[in-house]
Amino acid sequence: MTSIHAALVQQEMCADYQKNVDYSLDQISAAAKKGANLVVLCELHSSLYFCQEESTHNFSLAQPIPGPLTNLLSTAAKQHKVVVVGSVFEKRTEGLYHNTAVVLESDGSLAGTYRKMHIPDDPGYYEKYYFAFGDQGFTPIQTSIGKLGVLVCWDQWFPEAARLMALAGAQLLIYPSAIGWDPGDNKTEQHRQLEAWQTIQQSHAIANNLPLICTNRVGYEKDFSGRSNGIHFWGQSFITDTLGKITKQASSSDAETIFSTIDLNETEQTRQIWPYLRDRRIDAYENLSKRLIDD
Amino acid sequence: MTSIHAALVQQEMCADYQKNVDYSLDQISAAAKKGANLVVLCELHSSLYFCQEESTHNFSLAQPIPGPLTNLLSTAAKQHKVVVVGSVFEKRTEGLYHNTAVVLESDGSLAGTYRKMHIPDDPGYYEKYYFAFGDQGFTPIQTSIGKLGVLVCWDQWFPEAARLMALAGAQLLIYPSAIGWDPGDNKTEQHRQLEAWQTIQQSHAIANNLPLICTNRVGYEKDFSGRSNGIHFWGQSFITDTLGKITKQASSSDAETIFSTIDLNETEQTRQIWPYLRDRRIDAYENLSKRLIDD
Repeated sequence: MTSIHAALVQQEMCADYQKNVDYSLDQISAAAKKGANLVVLCELHSSLYFCQEESTHNFSLAQPIPGPLTNLLSTAAKQHKVVVVGSVFEKRTEGLYHNTAVVLESDGSLAGTYRKMHIPDDPGYYEKYYFAFGDQGFTPIQTSIGKLGVLVCWDQWFPEAARLMALAGAQLLIYPSAIGWDPGDNKTEQHRQLEAWQTIQQSHAIANNLPLICTNRVGYEKDFSGRSNGIHFWGQSFITDTLGKITKQASSSDAETIFSTIDLNETEQTRQIWPYLRDRRIDAYENLSKRLIDD
Repeated sequence: MTSIHAALVQQEMCADYQKNVDYSLDQISAAAKKGANLVVLCELHSSLYFCQEESTHNFSLAQPIPGPLTNLLSTAAKQHKVVVVGSVFEKRTEGLYHNTAVVLESDGSLAGTYRKMHIPDDPGYYEKYYFAFGDQGFTPIQTSIGKLGVLVCWDQWFPEAARLMALAGAQLLIYPSAIGWDPGDNKTEQHRQLEAWQTIQQSHAIANNLPLICTNRVGYEKDFSGRSNGIHFWGQSFITDTLGKITKQASSSDAETIFSTIDLNETEQTRQIWPYLRDRRIDAYENLSKRLIDD
């Protein structure tokens, strides 16, 4: 396999689980009909972004893996012969939950999971309340179309995560996301945040000479706790080439699925010209495992 | 000290050592008169970019530290009461050379040196022939205006270098550089490379919430070996804020000195909102010290 026909599903979520899941499944079907062999859904695409509040009642949204959602994704993947990257609020056991990306193989089997390693906890994004830290490390998931370096949202701000996926053989970086604007911020600040979000992800493509896919939810979601202005999820899902150039990008306002063909040979070509893996000073990186380098 | 008035000297070099040095010294003087308390020169600002060819005769350009060039920079720093970041082709002993950034304190003392850690070796950039790998690690240099995370050119492509400087307390990232276009490449490819170069550096500012300065030489330099088209150094020296936004940038064609004021308090403010240092998974980064993670 030297090229991937990828579909990025930018979705707007509502309070109705079935409606969200149906939309995801419909997009898998439609994308496959348009020739996609990889469909990437958003982070937590079966619900509103419940992490805006800390409330025990949201734990009822969690489900096991395998479970109802992965079963549906599996059936769709098999029926349409596509690899699917989905996202599950995983109930691992009583009282232990994760924010987990799942990869379904085109024969319906579960190719692998990635439990979100970097977990945010900020106003509007109270994820540390819901999710335990991932404990599988940064391990790409082998599929019939390539080795997928699946990471999730907040991971996208950490160059370490992308690098570890690349060193472990990822051929493509994938970030299902849920990030947006505080409607209370002014346009300048909103633009600044969006730019930083794009730039840091483009940089992972550049530093590792890997193509990169980021899907993001779109639309306004209210904060049910009433403590904040809610979040205007900024969409703008995108895909880059191996030099970080954004080759396709969705809008900031609409649910839409965008398509792009990825040439997996580009990484070898780009790395021959930009040989970072050759020149990394691995003898001098030990302190990356420290919280801070004290005097 | 909570703010730095920085001057970025984008210089065009010629074959005449004295002319190059005089230009650098003139810019230090002029910048200080305009209120700068930090002047950042380019990589190897006293000579043409000799690494376009591999030739023993270029070793005669090297000099010790302290030596003639650092003495001149020191005198200028003291006279004009500014901190100066310069660059020296360092002769450490017979047969041992480095590409070394030097920091002169505003009282003329040598605040510290940084020997380039990541050394390129690519057509037109035969640095591994001239320079031994730096052996001082990634250590910021304490000055009266702040702790400077001085790195050099090729280092700018490695997120590890910026992160280690940040963890060691750098308040500002500084990259004296010498990078340009192959005149044989078409405009699209040239633009792609320039964009990647800017993006990856912006990302270091973002990932570490540090302001960042990059100075680059400008102008066309011939390849004296006659093997290539030479290099059109692309200038475009720039400075970013702590969210990676480029706030000032020089042209692609002219030698010029640009100025910007850096608010060192911005890092604390930005880190409170974007707490990456809080959330780094240091328990899972060990493999960053590997060349490749084999199965």
